[in-house]
Amino acid sequence: MIARLGEGAVRISPDRLVVEEPMEIRLDDHLVTTTMRTPGNDYELAVGFCLTEGLLEGAAVHGVRYCGTGPAAETEFNVVSVSTDGRAPQPEPRLGTTTSSCGLCGSASLEALRKRLEPLTTAPPAVELAALTRAATEARRQQPLFDETGSIHAAAVFDPATGDVMMVREDIGRHNAVDKVIGRLLLDGQLPATGRGLLVSGRVSFEIVQKAWAAGFGLLAGVSGPSALAVDTARAANLGLVGFLRGRSANVYAPPPTLGQ
Amino acid sequence: MIARLGEGAVRISPDRLVVEEPMEIRLDDHLVTTTMRTPGNDYELAVGFCLTEGLLEGAAVHGVRYCGTGPAAETEFNVVSVSTDGRAPQPEPRLGTTTSSCGLCGSASLEALRKRLEPLTTAPPAVELAALTRAATEARRQQPLFDETGSIHAAAVFDPATGDVMMVREDIGRHNAVDKVIGRLLLDGQLPATGRGLLVSGRVSFEIVQKAWAAGFGLLAGVSGPSALAVDTARAANLGLVGFLRGRSANVYAPPPTLGQ
Repeated sequence: MIARLGEGAVRISPDRLVVEEPMEIRLDDHLVTTTMRTPGNDYELAVGFCLTEGLLEGAAVHGVRYCGTGPAAETEFNVVSVSTDGRAPQPEPRLGTTTSSCGLCGSASLEALRKRLEPLTTAPPAVELAALTRAATEARRQQPLFDETGSIHAAAVFDPATGDVMMVREDIGRHNAVDKVIGRLLLDGQLPATGRGLLVSGRVSFEIVQKAWAAGFGLLAGVSGPSALAVDTARAANLGLVGFLRGRSANVYAPPPTLGQ
Repeated sequence: MIARLGEGAVRISPDRLVVEEPMEIRLDDHLVTTTMRTPGNDYELAVGFCLTEGLLEGAAVHGVRYCGTGPAAETEFNVVSVSTDGRAPQPEPRLGTTTSSCGLCGSASLEALRKRLEPLTTAPPAVELAALTRAATEARRQQPLFDETGSIHAAAVFDPATGDVMMVREDIGRHNAVDKVIGRLLLDGQLPATGRGLLVSGRVSFEIVQKAWAAGFGLLAGVSGPSALAVDTARAANLGLVGFLRGRSANVYAPPPTLGQ
């Protein structure tokens, strides 16, 4: 029960809250990271994380399983191991909020990404504001956890030409929602996501651009703004980047606009 | 330059973006974590992080310094070391988005916190909606980076009785903004923050409640909603928790309301 304050009145009523639980991700039984996530689509999250953080290095995923142990039954579904039958290199545990390959400044971080990922060879799809707006509206309709709680992030795969939405995933962490959609595409043999759009409900950080690039998306759109490093990274990747997608307006950060356009 | 789309027109214009750069935090020269943050108030961030993650264990901070090395001048300000003259225990590097002491499920994470932190002995301050609304309005007026970019998180210290705002810090990461205000309080000898309120611009996750508890705040208020684990943790801490502080309404999650109140 919670108390709702407003308009001079207090109302006591039940409430639905977003669930947040730690999940440990392992690759070929080596610990990679622990992330606070909303349970559900855990295999997708684990597989997506390993791909977007560059841990697979081209190795195919042969299996995913829960491998929680210990006395508490509730931890059974909080450890997920991705198997490549040992073909992926042994991962280094991921420290804090940056990747282990991350440099000690923004430009070094971008350089490290450039060594791992080739710029996209397909030109970013044309940005159609009507299609983007439609995608945002459609994605919003496919967020049952947001309907319940009013407070959760989402990521969606959409067609930049029409705004059709192919998939939506929700999570308390923006980066987790992105890994879940990418993990699903990988498990369905649909990567790289050439020409497709990725929509995220919040800000666009370096980390989110890195993940979109690793999955081969053509266009990344965020409801809020990108960081300077996110813009630099999208331009280096040849990835289209749109921010502040709200109502009937949006900003295009990448590719950089040409005067006279 | 970026392209602004809307109302059938495209406008090319310059844009101000949030800066995002990695920062490595060390404690007595041992690596603790690397976080993507908005530069500025870096000492506060490093000190606040060490305190709120339980790394100091009561040891006093004797100094903070930049200790970047290497060929690139731009990394000079991206490594910060907090010194306790070796009085703090040697830290274990922090893995992913959870603390090293974190359990493998939500209740174990809460239990680990309970071992480290005592419940607050001062009852949470009364929740005054008018004061909360005033604090949110005042805090919003002290966010120069949000004014410039439209996309950055903030944390503020306020007086729950009056809504007076004592300090605001901004960062691309919600948790970093919280560590910055707490680090400032620590450096000013103002911890524990008994009876004070902490306002955050976004959602309230377990991590944010943990940080507010570690600093001894009486009340934590978020503009968006808390997770279920965040509510459980605030109740265990005897910390007041308010969510969805928007306009003239808010929800009170902790302490739990009593019927007939």
